[in-house]
Amino acid sequence: MLYEYPLQTGKEGFIDITDKVRDAVKQSGVFDGMATVYCPHTTAGVTINENSDPDVVSDLLLALDRTYPDREEFRHSEGNSAAHLKASVIGSSVNVMIDDGKLVLGRWQGIYFTEFDGPRQRRFSVKIIGQPRPERK
Amino acid sequence: MLYEYPLQTGKEGFIDITDKVRDAVKQSGVFDGMATVYCPHTTAGVTINENSDPDVVSDLLLALDRTYPDREEFRHSEGNSAAHLKASVIGSSVNVMIDDGKLVLGRWQGIYFTEFDGPRQRRFSVKIIGQPRPERK
Amino acid sequence: MLYEYPLQTGKEGFIDITDKVRDAVKQSGVFDGMATVYCPHTTAGVTINENSDPDVVSDLLLALDRTYPDREEFRHSEGNSAAHLKASVIGSSVNVMIDDGKLVLGRWQGIYFTEFDGPRQRRFSVKIIGQPRPERK
Repeated sequence: MLYEYPLQTGKEGFIDITDKVRDAVKQSGVFDGMATVYCPHTTAGVTINENSDPDVVSDLLLALDRTYPDREEFRHSEGNSAAHLKASVIGSSVNVMIDDGKLVLGRWQGIYFTEFDGPRQRRFSVKIIGQPRPERK
Repeated sequence: MLYEYPLQTGKEGFIDITDKVRDAVKQSGVFDGMATVYCPHTTAGVTINENSDPDVVSDLLLALDRTYPDREEFRHSEGNSAAHLKASVIGSSVNVMIDDGKLVLGRWQGIYFTEFDGPRQRRFSVKIIGQPRPERK
Repeated sequence: MLYEYPLQTGKEGFIDITDKVRDAVKQSGVFDGMATVYCPHTTAGVTINENSDPDVVSDLLLALDRTYPDREEFRHSEGNSAAHLKASVIGSSVNVMIDDGKLVLGRWQGIYFTEFDGPRQRRFSVKIIGQPRPERK
């Protein structure tokens, strides 16, 4: 089962998509399995991090900019090589387990779509693999 | 099949959990499939790297500290934003294949739980998906 | 279903392996599922990034070298700790969905084997999980 969600992003940002992934799990009816969240873009990614204090993700964005700056030597004509690098460092997908029909996230974990070269119209997919609830006898 | 393991960590470190993942595979009885190792924390992660010379993982810790330092501009009040960043860079899960009832790791590969903000009482999960050994005819 | 591919690498580089992964999906006959591409080495990885302008991946290599330099403090006697770090930052596997018998990649996405300590004789695996095409009634 494959679910797709559109997303309008700003210039840069961590967008919390946990509720949408939960929604996909619910729609799928899978009781025991795995959800894979996938980003089909090359200047954006998907990651799991703190869902509580919004300062965490703004600190992450700032530190990513400092760690992976634009460089004079870059040759890619679109000028967004730093965004491509951040995408590969953060990664294009995450796996989250499904148990008892629910996403198994840690207490402070949220799932984020990470935009590094917006604003753009983006999308992400959720693939659910697993078994439905066993029938009662 | 979902297996959980507790872990007491030190301040920072790569903790080899390969044997525990092997144990989960064995318990599951899965012959052909995939093991996903998942970290439910936001200042720790899971990665695969060299299992032989312990200098490798101590070099990795040192270089991660240099690459992702604490920064004056960070606003997160807990003061552990660098650890959150390392968690997203290293990642919250790894996949390892199962073939012939065994984990398919490269000769020099071990699976590590990576603590970036300890000491803490942590845990990790192993999800096993796949088929049991085909019956003999 | 598990497929293995050999690879001769150069000193460093992003090697496009998308066609080989497509080939594995085709051979598997899986119609709806997931492909996991796995690197069994500890100084190489697998990532997804732009498949069009080759300047992107050369910019990535350059920026990875600058971000994760060799360091005097490194103790690992083989002298390739920076390559081990890049391997853990980029990651040892990627997941790509399979729908309608085809790999579901974004328009600009290609799958790359990333060599950080070559030249070497390398290999990678593709594990395919999923269901065959439903039979017509």
